[in-house]
Amino acid sequence: MKQSKLYIPTLKQTPSDAEAISHQLMLRAGYIRQVSAGVYAYLPLAWSVIQKIEGLIRKQMKDIDAAEMRMPAILPADLWKESGRYATYGDNLFKFKDRHDRDFILGPTHEETFTSIVKEGLNSYKKLPIAMYQIQMKYRDEDRPRNGLLRGREFIMQDAYSFTSNKEQLDVIFNQMEQAYRNIFDACGLNYRVIIGDAGAMGGTDSKEFSAIADIGEDTIAYSDDSDYSANLEMAASKMDENPVEDKKEMEEVNTPNVHTIDALAQLLKVDASRIMKAVAYIADEKPVMVMIRGDYDVNDVKLKNYLGADFLREATNEEVTDVFGSVPGFIGPKGIKEDVKVLYDSSLVGLTNFVVGPNKADRHFVNANFEDITDEMPEFRDFRVIKEGETSPDGHGKIQFTRGIEIGHIFKLGTKFSKALGANFLDENGKSNPIIMGSYGIGVSRLLTAIVEQHSDENGIVWPVSLAPYQVHVVPIKYNNDVQGKLSDEIVELLENEGYDVLLDDRKERPGVKFADSDLIGTPIRITVGKKAADEIVELKLRSTGETIEVSKDELVNSVKILLKNQK
Amino acid sequence: MKQSKLYIPTLKQTPSDAEAISHQLMLRAGYIRQVSAGVYAYLPLAWSVIQKIEGLIRKQMKDIDAAEMRMPAILPADLWKESGRYATYGDNLFKFKDRHDRDFILGPTHEETFTSIVKEGLNSYKKLPIAMYQIQMKYRDEDRPRNGLLRGREFIMQDAYSFTSNKEQLDVIFNQMEQAYRNIFDACGLNYRVIIGDAGAMGGTDSKEFSAIADIGEDTIAYSDDSDYSANLEMAASKMDENPVEDKKEMEEVNTPNVHTIDALAQLLKVDASRIMKAVAYIADEKPVMVMIRGDYDVNDVKLKNYLGADFLREATNEEVTDVFGSVPGFIGPKGIKEDVKVLYDSSLVGLTNFVVGPNKADRHFVNANFEDITDEMPEFRDFRVIKEGETSPDGHGKIQFTRGIEIGHIFKLGTKFSKALGANFLDENGKSNPIIMGSYGIGVSRLLTAIVEQHSDENGIVWPVSLAPYQVHVVPIKYNNDVQGKLSDEIVELLENEGYDVLLDDRKERPGVKFADSDLIGTPIRITVGKKAADEIVELKLRSTGETIEVSKDELVNSVKILLKNQK
Repeated sequence: MKQSKLYIPTLKQTPSDAEAISHQLMLRAGYIRQVSAGVYAYLPLAWSVIQKIEGLIRKQMKDIDAAEMRMPAILPADLWKESGRYATYGDNLFKFKDRHDRDFILGPTHEETFTSIVKEGLNSYKKLPIAMYQIQMKYRDEDRPRNGLLRGREFIMQDAYSFTSNKEQLDVIFNQMEQAYRNIFDACGLNYRVIIGDAGAMGGTDSKEFSAIADIGEDTIAYSDDSDYSANLEMAASKMDENPVEDKKEMEEVNTPNVHTIDALAQLLKVDASRIMKAVAYIADEKPVMVMIRGDYDVNDVKLKNYLGADFLREATNEEVTDVFGSVPGFIGPKGIKEDVKVLYDSSLVGLTNFVVGPNKADRHFVNANFEDITDEMPEFRDFRVIKEGETSPDGHGKIQFTRGIEIGHIFKLGTKFSKALGANFLDENGKSNPIIMGSYGIGVSRLLTAIVEQHSDENGIVWPVSLAPYQVHVVPIKYNNDVQGKLSDEIVELLENEGYDVLLDDRKERPGVKFADSDLIGTPIRITVGKKAADEIVELKLRSTGETIEVSKDELVNSVKILLKNQK
Repeated sequence: MKQSKLYIPTLKQTPSDAEAISHQLMLRAGYIRQVSAGVYAYLPLAWSVIQKIEGLIRKQMKDIDAAEMRMPAILPADLWKESGRYATYGDNLFKFKDRHDRDFILGPTHEETFTSIVKEGLNSYKKLPIAMYQIQMKYRDEDRPRNGLLRGREFIMQDAYSFTSNKEQLDVIFNQMEQAYRNIFDACGLNYRVIIGDAGAMGGTDSKEFSAIADIGEDTIAYSDDSDYSANLEMAASKMDENPVEDKKEMEEVNTPNVHTIDALAQLLKVDASRIMKAVAYIADEKPVMVMIRGDYDVNDVKLKNYLGADFLREATNEEVTDVFGSVPGFIGPKGIKEDVKVLYDSSLVGLTNFVVGPNKADRHFVNANFEDITDEMPEFRDFRVIKEGETSPDGHGKIQFTRGIEIGHIFKLGTKFSKALGANFLDENGKSNPIIMGSYGIGVSRLLTAIVEQHSDENGIVWPVSLAPYQVHVVPIKYNNDVQGKLSDEIVELLENEGYDVLLDDRKERPGVKFADSDLIGTPIRITVGKKAADEIVELKLRSTGETIEVSKDELVNSVKILLKNQK
């Protein structure tokens, strides 16, 4: 392809409104342009990369017998009202009415639509299992779209759905999908982690998330430095050191006037925060809940919410601590709290002795308290805490590290949530009607560009993995309108295209410096410079990733390109 | 691909709500399902055909150096307000607001967006010409969506745009696009006509339309039975027989009481309708216009509107004929009509003598009138009429025939309409700023399915052209769970897939009759039945298009398939 025929509006200046490196580079290299906040045009180079990613996906899906199809993007609201998500998605749903005043939405995902479409046809166990997918624009009216393609309002997803008659079939497809997704992300040259996900709005139970390591990632990932363990911070567990064993002392009540923080309390009483039992008061679905946790830890709202199965969770206000909990803000504790308050204990408290705890009286605390002093029976301990870096991985191997990640894929065992809601049933071997067991699987295709460029760039521009580069080879004649250079350039393009490579030819009348800078910015793996030695049919090959150059004769060119591309990722 | 892994919900009954053959067959054969009026799910078979069409398009676009990219489907309304189309598209636009109350539309076409995106980058004649395209879901809130994919509210378009610095460049790309589109439609096996189009809402001047011949077509096409001439009826011209030459007589005014139609007038006066000069009164953009035309012809509103350059055109009411034209309904004519009425003469009147015409008096007509009796000077004649079948083609070759057609493609020389409206300018060789000269080009991709199935089906189902069939070969074992048949079927699938064919294997436990019926319905070009002779490695090949069958041994199979597919279209 001649560069003069491609619309590649490169920029010399970094656009001031782009913060993320990937966003800056995709704008500067002429890959994307914003049409509206979070809504982008994919210019030819970006679209070419997208198509290559789609190709990787199609190959993997074919291997596991998942068939491609296409659902509409405009969806009647009815099904979403039936499933309940019309309400729960809230303002994130783009809603509109057609000319006949019927409610529609722009689909952010398609569980409902797929469920309703297969209802008619997958009515017998004989027709199961089956898996289908689509690659499609999705819509979410994000409050604050940001970082280019990372969090957009229109974005490309691959979403797959499986329909099975039993859990074994679901497990098989779930595992196949996980492997297919791993293969895809490997082929994209990504550094990523497979983590235990929070099912969130999908409502499923079993789920895994694929997260590409990147500073701009919106999630904090906790992973072991010596095992496969990875989890979103909200879901991450760890092994703590055990609390020190001590002889139990006699509990006393002491004055702690105007002390409202753990730090102040620790300072006043000259104890470590780890010897304080902290109470955090919540209102969960209108009911009072109190979580006891060691003073040096924080409560993880997601773990708490999941444990409670609550729809809405928030910390209690000072008024509520007084009125609903019957306590005093800052001095709250289990002993003497109102009976209808649910009291939970975090596992950081296991074995804690001689601790400090609130007595539900103003300006006072218990010291040297033990569990028998404050509760009638030994409580059950559960994991409600935000873990910390450096703790031991829950599998016992390695220490926990934190990193930032971009969610690039997610796989869910949905179970029967949607098939029950929408009445998608099949007849089993015994003629009994059962809801179809479903899974859903998704890759953020456009977001992958962000993740890949975040991981593959340098100060001069993007450095594409060979598998995804819009063009693998960039032929750059110093002067294309020089007969010798022009002819040799054309010959080289033909030679390489005949070998199946995607070749970009810079036929523009620009200074060499401009051409080289654009070439680096665009990020093709190999640049072939056709210059003075063209008369001798000698050109220069430059590797984008390392900057290394070699001189090669035309005869050796195809072979050299082949070897060089094979040895890169 | 194993059929058990594909979702193909075939139906035994023809759905009652589908009228068009193509719509019935695509539902019955499990290709599509309606999600909402005019909004469809493309099930795996249909999506496979769509992807093959996309492949044909991509190949042709590559050959003419048009690059693929992708614009958003959700578009801020601003640009459409600037171009004026936010108003003119009316209720056909899907409109919505985002969470910040900003106006958006779902794009039915992308002239504005492309123009605005290239503004920044195509600012010099050196960067022109350039052409880009996308293949994308488009949106039109049709009042009455119908005939399945023919007229949908969400539909797939290929839309291309060219940006050039002069008319010669535009002509080159326009002609390349026309040829590319012809190649695509030829490869789809379509019987179609390239006709002179009505630019309509695109506002361009020069345009051509590609129309597939089909009874369910919404357009009437006039074509010559002995030349390439084709036009939409609204634009079609023809050569009429000349009016008979006669000695001019003396004009008289006669009584024609209560005669309000041409037929009644002809009968009363015992003249042929072709000797009556009919007047039709219009209001065009609030102004009175009267078209004189021979009594046996009708005025073509589109021709009239285009000639006047009017935005709104309608026939005048009786009250307006009285008040605005100063005449009497039924007796209107040019002589004595109010001076501000624009009077136009259709070319059917050239050379007409001794005719009947209204005198603007109740219950009276002039007879034996000639032009000098009713106008001060000889009028100019222009083509305002609806032509008739059997007239001579305007190129003089052949007679005009009518047929129905489906618009499958359209190419427009837009000129500077959008670049002027949105300020997309380039600097020419002399450093002077000029608006970019644009073209736009479109193929109705999903609609093509309708056109193709309308032209390629029989009483048993769809008969796909080889180039587009979702699978070229359908391997149908009588009993797949019979060891010999199963093994041979698998071997055949592998043999053919290794040759690059798309093969569907019916591995279902169904009766042979069900499998054969489904195979015919789906419409794969070749069916291979693996039955009793499997032990001898002999199978039956059946051609879908002709129903012919031959027996072939496994050794001869690949070769036979190759020859048979090559000899079909």
